[in-house]
Amino acid sequence: MTITKQRLQDFPFTLEYRTRWSDNDAYGHMNNAKYLELFDSITNVVLEPLLKTSSQIALIVHADADYYASVAYPEVLQVGLGVSRLGRSAVHWELGVFSATGTLACMGRYVHVFCNKSQKSEAMSSLSAQRLQELVLTTPSL
Amino acid sequence: MTITKQRLQDFPFTLEYRTRWSDNDAYGHMNNAKYLELFDSITNVVLEPLLKTSSQIALIVHADADYYASVAYPEVLQVGLGVSRLGRSAVHWELGVFSATGTLACMGRYVHVFCNKSQKSEAMSSLSAQRLQELVLTTPSL
Amino acid sequence: MTITKQRLQDFPFTLEYRTRWSDNDAYGHMNNAKYLELFDSITNVVLEPLLKTSSQIALIVHADADYYASVAYPEVLQVGLGVSRLGRSAVHWELGVFSATGTLACMGRYVHVFCNKSQKSEAMSSLSAQRLQELVLTTPSL
Amino acid sequence: MTITKQRLQDFPFTLEYRTRWSDNDAYGHMNNAKYLELFDSITNVVLEPLLKTSSQIALIVHADADYYASVAYPEVLQVGLGVSRLGRSAVHWELGVFSATGTLACMGRYVHVFCNKSQKSEAMSSLSAQRLQELVLTTPSL
Repeated sequence: MTITKQRLQDFPFTLEYRTRWSDNDAYGHMNNAKYLELFDSITNVVLEPLLKTSSQIALIVHADADYYASVAYPEVLQVGLGVSRLGRSAVHWELGVFSATGTLACMGRYVHVFCNKSQKSEAMSSLSAQRLQELVLTTPSL
Repeated sequence: MTITKQRLQDFPFTLEYRTRWSDNDAYGHMNNAKYLELFDSITNVVLEPLLKTSSQIALIVHADADYYASVAYPEVLQVGLGVSRLGRSAVHWELGVFSATGTLACMGRYVHVFCNKSQKSEAMSSLSAQRLQELVLTTPSL
Repeated sequence: MTITKQRLQDFPFTLEYRTRWSDNDAYGHMNNAKYLELFDSITNVVLEPLLKTSSQIALIVHADADYYASVAYPEVLQVGLGVSRLGRSAVHWELGVFSATGTLACMGRYVHVFCNKSQKSEAMSSLSAQRLQELVLTTPSL
Repeated sequence: MTITKQRLQDFPFTLEYRTRWSDNDAYGHMNNAKYLELFDSITNVVLEPLLKTSSQIALIVHADADYYASVAYPEVLQVGLGVSRLGRSAVHWELGVFSATGTLACMGRYVHVFCNKSQKSEAMSSLSAQRLQELVLTTPSL
């Protein structure tokens, strides 16, 4: 699998996150698990409004991340989000975390599956599909 | 001890923090321990530049918090910081966490003690005292 | 307020917690906010069975901690829990965190208030009061 | 890539972790990012003794996880660790997180690269290679 490094402007949705003291680990840079906290945070900003009006939940079945550079508290980070593949019940996200100076620190991927309350996968609503379609990355990286 | 509730504008130093998905606990609001992550984050924005130029560290010997209202992801919070008492080696902080709409969610207090590398308390440098003096709360709350 | 330092054997309820890499902050010891994660964890082991059978929730209105010594990953910690005051709707907890070698690292206090779903305080059930009564500290520390 | 699901007994190194209240997210189960906190914790139990006696650090360049089932506070989890590939400067880990009843909840992979203090990759010491060799998985899964 070839990974195309994205730039912040390639992502259709971005948010700014101020780092916290607890993001740094004993090595003095942001810990690898903290990147996933940011992935969770930005994807749920998109997903929660879609799920609120439905009886579905969205479960994560896969996560991965490649780390290219360090970032550290107290930097303010930019996080970019796009959809790399949109299935019937699954959405594949691509995420980039950028330092205050614009350096790509981490590229990540998340897969959410839309499920009913019993955690069985289901087709997402057409409203959800429509919203997620707007976030599809035009520079395909997968 | 009477606690005077502060308003955001009473604090000499403020920062904005975007909440994260992981800030919410099973009750769907920001977990009580996460407020201390914010206290740590904003106080170290002030302390780190002071400590970088010295051979001292600053250890927390006391923390407390009173919780008045809930906040929740994905709100963007305002955190206010001031000094309520400035000793020879100790700084007593007062902190307020405010919701996106300006409601006071939590008032907290932290005590940092300046120490040498062997963790013995020491007088802070006059430069540190001078900087911290600028942050003393004019509406005393302790 | 005089704080009487408790020993692990003074607490009627104890649990062992393995520290995690992320517990350590940039100073290489367990971060002050992480102690509250442990307080939350052990108190809810007691509270959750009581709340499950009721329509009440328990909200934290106050937390404080005094830090006496450092602990650090990968230590396995002992956490002790007792009730220092039991009200009609409020339970005051006292908590101790002990290093692998038995040193008291932190003494903390938590106040949970039993509430209805609209977050109004309510008397706790007699079943809850009975269970919490069993955990009252016999060496009063407040 | 075919992923062979491992059983706990297939891993040469295992540790028990008590879950914490904050591990659960708003959905009431352990949050996906928390699994990486456990990966970090168990791999560093192996790595730290190796690094302490050297001038090297170990940086994470890749992490991924597949989620199969939920676990939740207050469960006590079992985490299994093995080496799936051992390079000159890189170690590829395979990790399994198991519920209290032995169900595989998550399979993960981590890649640590041994580096000098300037973060350039370097061959690991023969002592490190020897220790890590002992943890190589005999049921190859990659």
